[in-house]
Amino acid sequence: MKISSNFDSGNIEVVSLDSTSDIQLNISKDNNSDFYQWFHFKIESTAGEEHQFRILNAKQSAYPDGWQDYKTMASYDRETWFRIDTCYEDGELKFNHIPDFDHVFYAYFVPYSYERHLDLIHKSQLAPDTQLITLGQTIDGRDMFLLQIGQEAEGKKKIWITARQHPGESMAEWYVEGLLERLFDHDDAVSRLLLANAVFYVVPNMNPDGSARGHLRTNAVGTNLNREWLEPSLDKSPEVFYVRQKMLETGVDMFLDIHGDEAIPYNFVAGCEGIKSYDARHQALEETFKAAYAAATPEFQDVHGYDKDEPGQALPTVGAAWVGEQFKCLSYTVEMPFKDHNDAPDAFYGWNDVRSAKFGADVLTAILAVVKKLR
Amino acid sequence: MKISSNFDSGNIEVVSLDSTSDIQLNISKDNNSDFYQWFHFKIESTAGEEHQFRILNAKQSAYPDGWQDYKTMASYDRETWFRIDTCYEDGELKFNHIPDFDHVFYAYFVPYSYERHLDLIHKSQLAPDTQLITLGQTIDGRDMFLLQIGQEAEGKKKIWITARQHPGESMAEWYVEGLLERLFDHDDAVSRLLLANAVFYVVPNMNPDGSARGHLRTNAVGTNLNREWLEPSLDKSPEVFYVRQKMLETGVDMFLDIHGDEAIPYNFVAGCEGIKSYDARHQALEETFKAAYAAATPEFQDVHGYDKDEPGQALPTVGAAWVGEQFKCLSYTVEMPFKDHNDAPDAFYGWNDVRSAKFGADVLTAILAVVKKLR
Amino acid sequence: MKISSNFDSGNIEVVSLDSTSDIQLNISKDNNSDFYQWFHFKIESTAGEEHQFRILNAKQSAYPDGWQDYKTMASYDRETWFRIDTCYEDGELKFNHIPDFDHVFYAYFVPYSYERHLDLIHKSQLAPDTQLITLGQTIDGRDMFLLQIGQEAEGKKKIWITARQHPGESMAEWYVEGLLERLFDHDDAVSRLLLANAVFYVVPNMNPDGSARGHLRTNAVGTNLNREWLEPSLDKSPEVFYVRQKMLETGVDMFLDIHGDEAIPYNFVAGCEGIKSYDARHQALEETFKAAYAAATPEFQDVHGYDKDEPGQALPTVGAAWVGEQFKCLSYTVEMPFKDHNDAPDAFYGWNDVRSAKFGADVLTAILAVVKKLR
Amino acid sequence: MKISSNFDSGNIEVVSLDSTSDIQLNISKDNNSDFYQWFHFKIESTAGEEHQFRILNAKQSAYPDGWQDYKTMASYDRETWFRIDTCYEDGELKFNHIPDFDHVFYAYFVPYSYERHLDLIHKSQLAPDTQLITLGQTIDGRDMFLLQIGQEAEGKKKIWITARQHPGESMAEWYVEGLLERLFDHDDAVSRLLLANAVFYVVPNMNPDGSARGHLRTNAVGTNLNREWLEPSLDKSPEVFYVRQKMLETGVDMFLDIHGDEAIPYNFVAGCEGIKSYDARHQALEETFKAAYAAATPEFQDVHGYDKDEPGQALPTVGAAWVGEQFKCLSYTVEMPFKDHNDAPDAFYGWNDVRSAKFGADVLTAILAVVKKLR
Ligand SMILES: [Ca+2]
Ligand SMILES: [Ca+2]
Ligand SMILES: [Ca+2]
Ligand SMILES: [Ca+2]
Repeated sequence: MKISSNFDSGNIEVVSLDSTSDIQLNISKDNNSDFYQWFHFKIESTAGEEHQFRILNAKQSAYPDGWQDYKTMASYDRETWFRIDTCYEDGELKFNHIPDFDHVFYAYFVPYSYERHLDLIHKSQLAPDTQLITLGQTIDGRDMFLLQIGQEAEGKKKIWITARQHPGESMAEWYVEGLLERLFDHDDAVSRLLLANAVFYVVPNMNPDGSARGHLRTNAVGTNLNREWLEPSLDKSPEVFYVRQKMLETGVDMFLDIHGDEAIPYNFVAGCEGIKSYDARHQALEETFKAAYAAATPEFQDVHGYDKDEPGQALPTVGAAWVGEQFKCLSYTVEMPFKDHNDAPDAFYGWNDVRSAKFGADVLTAILAVVKKLR
Repeated sequence: MKISSNFDSGNIEVVSLDSTSDIQLNISKDNNSDFYQWFHFKIESTAGEEHQFRILNAKQSAYPDGWQDYKTMASYDRETWFRIDTCYEDGELKFNHIPDFDHVFYAYFVPYSYERHLDLIHKSQLAPDTQLITLGQTIDGRDMFLLQIGQEAEGKKKIWITARQHPGESMAEWYVEGLLERLFDHDDAVSRLLLANAVFYVVPNMNPDGSARGHLRTNAVGTNLNREWLEPSLDKSPEVFYVRQKMLETGVDMFLDIHGDEAIPYNFVAGCEGIKSYDARHQALEETFKAAYAAATPEFQDVHGYDKDEPGQALPTVGAAWVGEQFKCLSYTVEMPFKDHNDAPDAFYGWNDVRSAKFGADVLTAILAVVKKLR
Repeated sequence: MKISSNFDSGNIEVVSLDSTSDIQLNISKDNNSDFYQWFHFKIESTAGEEHQFRILNAKQSAYPDGWQDYKTMASYDRETWFRIDTCYEDGELKFNHIPDFDHVFYAYFVPYSYERHLDLIHKSQLAPDTQLITLGQTIDGRDMFLLQIGQEAEGKKKIWITARQHPGESMAEWYVEGLLERLFDHDDAVSRLLLANAVFYVVPNMNPDGSARGHLRTNAVGTNLNREWLEPSLDKSPEVFYVRQKMLETGVDMFLDIHGDEAIPYNFVAGCEGIKSYDARHQALEETFKAAYAAATPEFQDVHGYDKDEPGQALPTVGAAWVGEQFKCLSYTVEMPFKDHNDAPDAFYGWNDVRSAKFGADVLTAILAVVKKLR
Repeated sequence: MKISSNFDSGNIEVVSLDSTSDIQLNISKDNNSDFYQWFHFKIESTAGEEHQFRILNAKQSAYPDGWQDYKTMASYDRETWFRIDTCYEDGELKFNHIPDFDHVFYAYFVPYSYERHLDLIHKSQLAPDTQLITLGQTIDGRDMFLLQIGQEAEGKKKIWITARQHPGESMAEWYVEGLLERLFDHDDAVSRLLLANAVFYVVPNMNPDGSARGHLRTNAVGTNLNREWLEPSLDKSPEVFYVRQKMLETGVDMFLDIHGDEAIPYNFVAGCEGIKSYDARHQALEETFKAAYAAATPEFQDVHGYDKDEPGQALPTVGAAWVGEQFKCLSYTVEMPFKDHNDAPDAFYGWNDVRSAKFGADVLTAILAVVKKLR
């Protein structure tokens, strides 16, 4: 029996491998940080035998509530990921599995590797009217990629989409992959109409260092990027620094920042009701967008989500809040579950990569509903 | 230079092939009928040379207004179909083309062959909870196929979908192909939720004889099936006879009958405002459905379409009217264009097979919006 | 319970459908002929129940020896075909089957439809240096298609390939499909080298009428085309007339005529040892070709096959013999089994469409071995 | 203008980026070694402008003769790689390129990433009768993977295939990918017959550390693995240590070690004529194998290659020599070019990933020719 995690976004520490009936593991902290919750490892053992796993330090993880009702994802071929019965008790995350093959990958969610990221980015530059721009470099020396889709023109809206500030929220990049694929589909009327009215600026991965390192929440030096938007620095948060700089250059008429939420078993959005400039017009736009998204897919809902901010009480360091205030524009954090979307649950797969991609494609329908009203 | 049409849904008569600059053609009438408008033929000639086509009898066709702003479809490989500049003048349909290859197919719309129909039908029987049922036989001896998707259960709604009563409206079967593909997609939340609440009864082709024969509007003996729903007969309209019989057996809670319209360059639906039992509840359902379809895709709209029937003046022989009255249920004729959907036009392809399939997939979102309110 | 065969290449007559335990069938004769052996039909019945089939007139079929050790092919989706245990006794072909789905197709071999033929032909015209030529028309009015691949040039050899003179030998067209796909593959060194040294003239279907009609051996008027090469006529054998005419125009340096054999469970070739001009040079070419084909794939062998002709005793009316004599060139009939290739048997699928296509692709390796020696 | 190489197998050092007309680069040495020749980097600049590249330290690279007639590979999407005109003069490798897109990857050969390696390995474990075994760990902590395909049984031959001891020879892993895909294809007669007669032990990547690091020739600590087979050590060459250990356990009846050669523009093999135990039987096997490979594909030849070893003068530390001597078995080093295979050259792509995969698939035909004679 052998456990490995020395691959893209791998994260686990072995405490004890003495027995298949008691495999003891810990999740490693993000570098220079106390956050942890993302795990991704492979076991090599014997197909057909029961294996009992315990993640001992689950209780001290970033969001222990996230373990409640969570089911571990597993894959034999790194392509199809399914769910394993899991329970959270005594502060530990426990799951048993009788694998069909000797090698099994387990992960907090379907991983999205840096190699796939590079493939997505560079394949995209071949699309019509699309430019791939490097804004700068991360602390580990990776490129911060921006895709500009559509040609700027008088009257066209500027729609910014960023994903995966929190690197363990890999669903965010699956979402963007689905969104891009649809946007590039000439036969899709939504995409044709959107590109006639808007230019898209898409950052598929805001945190490539944290992603490759197997972090949950921070970049290479332990910074939570989504608290850096007021005063990002090249030292601690170059990722935000460069994107914010480019936003100030292009302007922003709408912003979606794509995330995953550890606890809530629903897709939802968190808006700008707490920013200072929030007004009736902004609220009306929000309502239109949410209604349109709900009409486009039952994977979206607006009942369950975060508590609303009190007026003026939004955290100004958060991406969506900063953009909303700075550009006086529709600005949302989009949240997807690590568990399932309970309005349309799927016991076998739960929320996964395929549904994330569809959900990202469907957001274009909602954007089309507001694009002409953004200014 | 040679013209052929001896293949599935072929239809043309050559008047003169004396010169590439004056190719004179007529469309053949449906058997035992005066209807004609569907054409589908191949020319074998010389790539790189200009060919000038005239369809001489365009003026006497079923819907001469359909030729206004219509653009002929063409294909070299029978898979990708594009549009050719076309004009309707002096009662003739005229188009010039400098083909890239020696053999070119031209058609009124992207054909959907009987072989593809058989593939679709039988591949579908492998889907979970799906039954393929033969209701009876057409006059030419083809099977009338019904797909039942989902298991009948207390409280589940019965949703019937039929397509291509008018065989030249091939977009109707592309629509059903897209609808079925989505309905069978386990990762699609709309489909999972629908199948939890409804059973689908789908007739992908109501008129296989007319389709294979290259008819526009009628079956093998010249019957317009969509005028037969009050009193179908095994002699003249077995297709309707068998489907109607099965509907009476299963009951119907919602009905969509998929068509193409020769003249109007928009997707739209025609409802039941003219049937006797039409009431506020029926109207509310219609409004909900239409709003949901429009919210799902800009390929649907409700501004352009047929004139509304006066109360009680619906033709009771029409499928959607008969079903609406008989079962007191939501019942629509869905119409797609032969030209383009002018709310999201595409100069190169116009309305086509791919967009029809997407539009059929998108209707499931609209059905989900009403499924619980149908009774 | 219902049996149908009214589709492309359908062939069956129902004698009795009284009981699932005794389904009695006959195969229909080719039009205007006594040949029969090809069958292709669909049963609609009940999944999970045993069905016992008898083909009563198997004994009088063209090749009753073909039924020995033959296993019927079956498919639920018209794409994947597998084998059913079958026996030939008391002059009847008998097979039992407990189908997994309600609708099952049975056929003598995997069918290749006219629609697929048209797709293959027209898609091929898009390949580089490829011309699609119509040589003339069949008696039912179908086109006789020739694909010319490669540009004629001084020193290039002319390689002719025809398939399916006998329409029930559908493996012959699967073979050509595989051959063409490889020939069009730029990354394949064999194909690149061949096209530098030869022009291919390919007739994927010599008998489209018989194919669509569900014939075993003859064209629309009952002519066995492979006995017409000395004196074909526009009345009885236009298919041969046109191809032969074109051969005389282009010249032929090598010829392969692709067939299926009902009895012998092996792939093999039948050569020209019986033609008058056969000499040591011709024999050496034959040996080189056969050795190269055997080296390319274990699906070829040269142990089992037809008895050799005595010198000068070849039937001069047969395609391969006529071409061999007329053009003094390497000329082969290629035979594939309806059963299996016993040197590499597969109990579940037997010989099938996929293996036929691979075998057709592999022949290019053997042709490359002789191409420079052909003249 | 910006150059990056911080991705899987990246390797370049920028000397000067002052001008698009004089981009000066160096290749980095393998860690702890003087070997270098592999390069892989991306430039971000302006499409449509000419860029002139110079690799300044080409002359001191491992195989300066390799640059003669070499053409640099380039890709916009990381999937399709084509060749760029290149020259070697004044001890520098020079190439000019006017890219079609802003971002261009250049590499010595089509890269094969560690992520793709993990996908290949784990997808393979799902194949019938296939086991994925980890033999041990590399110095950087990666797994040494072995695929065992087929079940061991009395009389079955043990065929070992290893690839990419030299990590910059990425064609070796493309070769194995093609070989495995064919071996898993049930419709392929060669594969069915081979698996009835042999068990395959395949190590798709002997040097995963060097591969990920962008090395040419050595592992993480600078060891040339193909000189370690007499006395491998866990310190310097654990990769060879573990594989050799397993070979001694299973026995070996045939061995292929897959490589690329920098200089020779042909595919070829290097055999065991220089090992002590070489005899007529071994030679006969070699001749049979080479003849079979040449018969299977024109991508193989036996005219060009390395000089033959004098009897007894084989380097005993080389993998193929050690295996040949140890197990008295057929044992080959297979070499593919970085340039092109000049017997079937392709000016646009040269030798590439697709052809490597086909060449790997074709070797199975050659193995089948000897499998029963191996002992
Ligand atoms: Ca988050
Ligand atoms: Ca209609
Ligand atoms: Ca034959
Ligand atoms: Ca080497």
